[in-house]
Amino acid sequence: MTSTNDTPEAQLASCRERIDDIDRRLVALLNERTAVVERIGQVKKDAQLPVYEPKREDAVYANVAANNHGPLPNDALQRVFERIMDEMRKVQRERMVIK
Amino acid sequence: MTSTNDTPEAQLASCRERIDDIDRRLVALLNERTAVVERIGQVKKDAQLPVYEPKREDAVYANVAANNHGPLPNDALQRVFERIMDEMRKVQRERMVIK
Repeated sequence: MTSTNDTPEAQLASCRERIDDIDRRLVALLNERTAVVERIGQVKKDAQLPVYEPKREDAVYANVAANNHGPLPNDALQRVFERIMDEMRKVQRERMVIK
Repeated sequence: MTSTNDTPEAQLASCRERIDDIDRRLVALLNERTAVVERIGQVKKDAQLPVYEPKREDAVYANVAANNHGPLPNDALQRVFERIMDEMRKVQRERMVIK
């Protein structure tokens, strides 16, 4: 942690190290999530179930909001998860076409 | 973990539990990141340093790409982080104006 006795530059450097560490953990979790999404795609394909289920997306937003203790507001978090789901859907679509 | 002996519905339910768990961890990390971004904003404000630093954003993308082992491609991951940084910048701006 930084101390207010440190120079602003030292405090910024320390904060950025923490952000880089958080980002590495975010990258690992996002890839873990993508792998599960791919597994879901495979199960649905084999069972000929519909790929797109808007109700499930609402359940994802509800889970996210229920577990949000801030400081990021719910609407900001929802927009981040919209992007996450959108990117994972793209990956799923591309894999399905190629395979 | 699911087994291929389970029904497709049971396999999907198990996958969704895993996703909900991953999402709770993502929410916690995103809030942890926001708190550090707010701290950076405060340090910059006190030291009258510029808020926007495009070089730092490039460093964030480089860190993300260097730690990406897939299956999410780098361009998808970069778009997710663009959204993350954009939302955190908004929070930072709003707090600065209000306080």
